Amino acid sequence: MAEQARIARFFAPLAQSEAGSFSLTDDAAALDVPAGRKLVITTDSVIVGTHVRADATPQQIAVKLMRRNLSDLAAMGATPWRYTLNLHTPAGLADAWFAGFAAALESEQKQFGLTLIGGDSTSGAGPLHATLTCYGLAGDVMRRNGAKAGDVVFVSGTIGDAALALQLGARTGFLAERYDAPTPRLMLGQMLQGIATSCIDISDGLVADAAQLARASNGAISLHAESIPLSNAAQKHRTMPDFWNVICGGDDYELLFTISSDAASELHQIAAATGIALTRIGTVTSGGGTQLLDKNGETIPIETGWEYN
Amino acid sequence: MAEQARIARFFAPLAQSEAGSFSLTDDAAALDVPAGRKLVITTDSVIVGTHVRADATPQQIAVKLMRRNLSDLAAMGATPWRYTLNLHTPAGLADAWFAGFAAALESEQKQFGLTLIGGDSTSGAGPLHATLTCYGLAGDVMRRNGAKAGDVVFVSGTIGDAALALQLGARTGFLAERYDAPTPRLMLGQMLQGIATSCIDISDGLVADAAQLARASNGAISLHAESIPLSNAAQKHRTMPDFWNVICGGDDYELLFTISSDAASELHQIAAATGIALTRIGTVTSGGGTQLLDKNGETIPIETGWEYN
Repeated sequence: MAEQARIARFFAPLAQSEAGSFSLTDDAAALDVPAGRKLVITTDSVIVGTHVRADATPQQIAVKLMRRNLSDLAAMGATPWRYTLNLHTPAGLADAWFAGFAAALESEQKQFGLTLIGGDSTSGAGPLHATLTCYGLAGDVMRRNGAKAGDVVFVSGTIGDAALALQLGARTGFLAERYDAPTPRLMLGQMLQGIATSCIDISDGLVADAAQLARASNGAISLHAESIPLSNAAQKHRTMPDFWNVICGGDDYELLFTISSDAASELHQIAAATGIALTRIGTVTSGGGTQLLDKNGETIPIETGWEYN
Repeated sequence: MAEQARIARFFAPLAQSEAGSFSLTDDAAALDVPAGRKLVITTDSVIVGTHVRADATPQQIAVKLMRRNLSDLAAMGATPWRYTLNLHTPAGLADAWFAGFAAALESEQKQFGLTLIGGDSTSGAGPLHATLTCYGLAGDVMRRNGAKAGDVVFVSGTIGDAALALQLGARTGFLAERYDAPTPRLMLGQMLQGIATSCIDISDGLVADAAQLARASNGAISLHAESIPLSNAAQKHRTMPDFWNVICGGDDYELLFTISSDAASELHQIAAATGIALTRIGTVTSGGGTQLLDKNGETIPIETGWEYN
């Protein structure tokens, strides 16, 4: 199928609810951003073989692509709104692949309340490469740079499931699902507005992203390994060599954030309202540097996750 | 140099004038879109070996990437404002490459009045692959779908120079420059607002893009080959076999637009004000289809340009 026919058949239906997408037939989209709202923009790519497995299904690619971006919006406390898609595919990819990819995007759109408004497509050499740029709306945004000495560090959900799935080669089950379809913590991010002093989503790994937050805030962060929330599935692997390095391997898409120590009661309410576990795992101090400590207060050396570079 | 250091050194300076870019250190950018203005969004990729030559310099890549996108804004009548960049590079690319690429972007920013606000970078398998998403502002936008039977078809500048450069293997001189550094017709696009009944930029080729415009407008377009504006450099190749097919090869980034026949005087003023030649090359009729006619009224068969797919 030629490019235009493919766009009309598989992608234009995803753009229907935004008149300013012009059904993907024009040179650009034209949007009316609601008055008084900030436009929050983030963009992330998924390259097959790097950010998803080499044999990932179109659905797995679409889901990971969407949720990596939504997680960035969550970290800023923004509400998903619109997105553009750049899709580079190997020559001769079957129409069935595009049908599956578009169906998965449609399901994501419905679940997270956003609409396709434009993009481009190419094909040729190199692995399948998809870029999504996600537009959110927010009254104000959370930043990485507001953590203060004396603040406490919290994390949502459980940590290390996705990295364990990769390490174990798990393709099905709870851990694999956490790698394939992370849950962007959008509602949590929105509720943390005005409460969290800083926030980041964990993509590179718990310690690597805590280090980013500490650096942006000109502070130091100490994390306690024994406090890191682990799923039951992860607990079973505690005897794995280099366990904490695996757990800090990234791809969690949980929120890591700081609050002042007197905001703990608000946090209990948010945990109850969202049904998401929020666990205190460390403290912010003055100075610089980020460390993970064992129960004896000894530093556990951690490679700072993987860098996508 | 590690990814973060590279971003801080080469790309963060390009984001300085927009506070909401957070110096590229956060999860997302947060912009205040001026009240009452539409946000115009377009996105286009440049893959080395496909959209630029395999040995293109970092400067050539940056310029082509930027201008392909700006040309889309021009076709909508929008003013450039902000952009995001997704950059995938082969592993181990030298810092000098990034320095040259960023320097070229800086020069483009100054020339066209826009600011980097975010992006992502990856490296690994596949050719160098850059995606730019360009944000413009407009009171209203021109569309492709407003051409009416009886309207006349105009084109800016000269046609076929870039495609001739490729065909001839020209690496320097006027034709090569037209391929390497097309001029987005931004001021023209803005001035055509309210005058043009439809507008598109020519990327796939004169006939292919005229066909897009005709299709979107539910009309037919007849173009006259002898009226197509040719540069002096292009005129020299009139005896080339299949000349009109080469001329209609694309990558012109000129504006193709329609006006009602009584708007000709406004157009003269715009041509005088912009210093850009505006040439009448055809007419819109009812029915469907797009054709290129020779001086005897015979159809010249044209492959509809290249499709980037």
